[in-house]
Amino acid sequence: MSHEHQPISPITDWKGQHFVSVDQITDKKQIFDLFKRAEIMKQTVENKNIHETLRGMSVVILFYQPSTRTFSSFEAASRRMGAYTYAYNGMNEISSAVKGETLPDTIRSIYQTTAADVIILRHPDDSSSAIAAEASYVPIVNAGSGKSEHPTQALLDLYSLYQTQGHLEGLKVAMVGDLLYGRTIKSLAKLLALVDPNVELHFISPNEVKAPREFVAELSTRCAVSESTDLKKVLPKVDAVYMTRVQEEWFKKANKMDEYERIKNKYVLTRHMVNQMKPSATVMHPLPRNGEIMEEVDEDPRAYYFEQMRAGLYIRMALLDAILANR
Amino acid sequence: MSHEHQPISPITDWKGQHFVSVDQITDKKQIFDLFKRAEIMKQTVENKNIHETLRGMSVVILFYQPSTRTFSSFEAASRRMGAYTYAYNGMNEISSAVKGETLPDTIRSIYQTTAADVIILRHPDDSSSAIAAEASYVPIVNAGSGKSEHPTQALLDLYSLYQTQGHLEGLKVAMVGDLLYGRTIKSLAKLLALVDPNVELHFISPNEVKAPREFVAELSTRCAVSESTDLKKVLPKVDAVYMTRVQEEWFKKANKMDEYERIKNKYVLTRHMVNQMKPSATVMHPLPRNGEIMEEVDEDPRAYYFEQMRAGLYIRMALLDAILANR
Amino acid sequence: MSHEHQPISPITDWKGQHFVSVDQITDKKQIFDLFKRAEIMKQTVENKNIHETLRGMSVVILFYQPSTRTFSSFEAASRRMGAYTYAYNGMNEISSAVKGETLPDTIRSIYQTTAADVIILRHPDDSSSAIAAEASYVPIVNAGSGKSEHPTQALLDLYSLYQTQGHLEGLKVAMVGDLLYGRTIKSLAKLLALVDPNVELHFISPNEVKAPREFVAELSTRCAVSESTDLKKVLPKVDAVYMTRVQEEWFKKANKMDEYERIKNKYVLTRHMVNQMKPSATVMHPLPRNGEIMEEVDEDPRAYYFEQMRAGLYIRMALLDAILANR
Repeated sequence: MSHEHQPISPITDWKGQHFVSVDQITDKKQIFDLFKRAEIMKQTVENKNIHETLRGMSVVILFYQPSTRTFSSFEAASRRMGAYTYAYNGMNEISSAVKGETLPDTIRSIYQTTAADVIILRHPDDSSSAIAAEASYVPIVNAGSGKSEHPTQALLDLYSLYQTQGHLEGLKVAMVGDLLYGRTIKSLAKLLALVDPNVELHFISPNEVKAPREFVAELSTRCAVSESTDLKKVLPKVDAVYMTRVQEEWFKKANKMDEYERIKNKYVLTRHMVNQMKPSATVMHPLPRNGEIMEEVDEDPRAYYFEQMRAGLYIRMALLDAILANR
Repeated sequence: MSHEHQPISPITDWKGQHFVSVDQITDKKQIFDLFKRAEIMKQTVENKNIHETLRGMSVVILFYQPSTRTFSSFEAASRRMGAYTYAYNGMNEISSAVKGETLPDTIRSIYQTTAADVIILRHPDDSSSAIAAEASYVPIVNAGSGKSEHPTQALLDLYSLYQTQGHLEGLKVAMVGDLLYGRTIKSLAKLLALVDPNVELHFISPNEVKAPREFVAELSTRCAVSESTDLKKVLPKVDAVYMTRVQEEWFKKANKMDEYERIKNKYVLTRHMVNQMKPSATVMHPLPRNGEIMEEVDEDPRAYYFEQMRAGLYIRMALLDAILANR
Repeated sequence: MSHEHQPISPITDWKGQHFVSVDQITDKKQIFDLFKRAEIMKQTVENKNIHETLRGMSVVILFYQPSTRTFSSFEAASRRMGAYTYAYNGMNEISSAVKGETLPDTIRSIYQTTAADVIILRHPDDSSSAIAAEASYVPIVNAGSGKSEHPTQALLDLYSLYQTQGHLEGLKVAMVGDLLYGRTIKSLAKLLALVDPNVELHFISPNEVKAPREFVAELSTRCAVSESTDLKKVLPKVDAVYMTRVQEEWFKKANKMDEYERIKNKYVLTRHMVNQMKPSATVMHPLPRNGEIMEEVDEDPRAYYFEQMRAGLYIRMALLDAILANR
């Protein structure tokens, strides 16, 4: 048995690479390469064209944490590209039958049984994707590893801003909610700072769940960052507001449910509040929402949280194309 | 965000419509449109032809109640038409991870993540399909909503009669079993009355689970209806007998398990009984059976309950074709 | 209803046949027919060619015992051949909703709903595949029935030996582990003896789980068989070693967990031990492993247990081709 292992390293070309962490993106050229591909995907999906550049390739989707949204997004991306698609949503239950098998053994096994060309992995352990990448003979795409990384979410969020604002230069973005445990916003913040040092990020959170000090310190060396508890004051001046859910599970683990109850409904976006925003503003949310945005906002033209998921389809098609297609 | 919602209304053309209730069918022309399409599907499946008129389209199958039969039937219909097919059988478990998300949010999300062209929904709540249709930007097909509706079952039952008898005019049909809780028979009865006022329906049930009074009264204004507890007397004169299972779950909920035990085996179709029927008669059952038809009947040429499910494949292919295909 | 049932009988031609037991293979010509087809599959997969000889056909995969490896292998085999593929991994849970339905009714139902051309079944009952074959109108492939049979595993094991050794004549093979409960090794032993009476089989096991007496007696009339507890002595002279896991579940059922603890780690293959083997030797294991082969062995060129699963893909493609394709 002799195979080349691909290292996890900064991405200078998507082709054949693992995508485990948003930190691998150190050159904004790689981002715009994906965006260009995503535009093509958008055209083909909207026109119901067949664009199966992965015909003959195999994509395995292994989810150890059940999911509707990310799972179906990757499955759709893979099938629409024409790949043979093997999508397993209940690996946590199935693999309990295979007690004691290590993740490296599972990764190598599924590669062999399916002749996979890429493996997309969601797993509760923070280090799962890195471990899988170390063991794998084919690229690993991280579809969510514990509470640490969900890099394709960051890309689709960035692409959503690009789609709605037409550019990413100098954008002012309010990021709202649980900035301590939430991974979504931190990854997006990093990518925005990479793309343009002139962006302005406004972190709005209850004091109990402010962004980690070292994260804010580091980010502040790369772009303008403000912190506050006052959402209303910030709304009129930003180009986008990114609402997030306070995630009950972290508070439960930390035995801080009273804190959760106190802060979970601190920020609720209403139609009245959206009306204070610029007409061209974008309202985002990674979904599912849990009351953070009232349903009365849904019909506002600034509401983009459902379309945001469509951006996920295009970005994931683009990513598979960039990693696998012979072009 | 701005989309056209399609109303739930009488179907004058299947194209682009929701199909939530059998009550939307008010014109028998729409039924025969489907039957004509189903004949084509039958030919292509039997000849193993490729007939993928939905290539490039996407079909989502969302089941909140696990199912083998209806689920695999819709999945097969979708795949055989060449559609990108996303089939989720365990939504009740997966979505428990997404506590608190509303059905409208889930419907809009899955539409966006997959670029769905139609969503097929099975859900335990009676109003689920109507709620989904209200929220959805693409047609909703009801694959079973609580105890109220399962409209594609009614169509496949009707098509089975059409296939075996060659026509639907003046048919005499015995409908047997739990007519109080059972939804299958009531929907079929409505469609038969719509197609031809000269049909004769014979309702055979234990007194405890007779068809609701208002239902019988209304139906009697549209065709001949008789009620009785005596199956044997009716068998020799009918063209078809439709056996159904007494469903334990309703009796359990109503705390009437002693009643269930008393009536569950009241009607059991034997070979001897089938031999009293016309040689051209049709024996139907929606399956699974629970002793209502003895296995000795399976080899009788009048037994049609397994083929009945094949009729389901053809009708569901026809329905997807009618709603989606560009013709 | 009138269909031809295919008998379970010795296979003289794969076309249209059930494959329920390894005992159906009584002529080695049938084995080499599959191997020849498997070579073609290997070429097409390795070259990423499209080779969809089952286009228009339908394959149903019904697993009543959840599985990653065998399930994904069959799913990949079916999809790569271009068949419409309906793969259900959780039948044990789904079908609990269909209480009381018999396996014959389920088999006939799924055939009708999907227009299946073959049904691949894994089920905990020893007689499940034979019962299904009796009821089915289309070929049944046994993907594991209780503790009795897993015939495609035996074929892929044999093909692995053929691939690595270049031939099967006169091979010396050590078979190690639980030879009492384990089914894998017994099936492979039978096939090796069929292919060439000059093979030498070395059974290595703890005394508590030696191969059944009658099995050894019968096999000894067909090829050379030795029994021993000493793995190290045998290793230098064999062409292949087949390690297996001692399966906890049988000991649990038999209330012999102390025995399990005593013998489970009796044979552990180390790098040092592999280095005593011929340079051309093959190290096999059906996986998952539970410590029987140390990870340090993985990079040795003799380690073949991961590639062994790839052989499973090729053999299952070959089998579907042989049973279904019009050639």
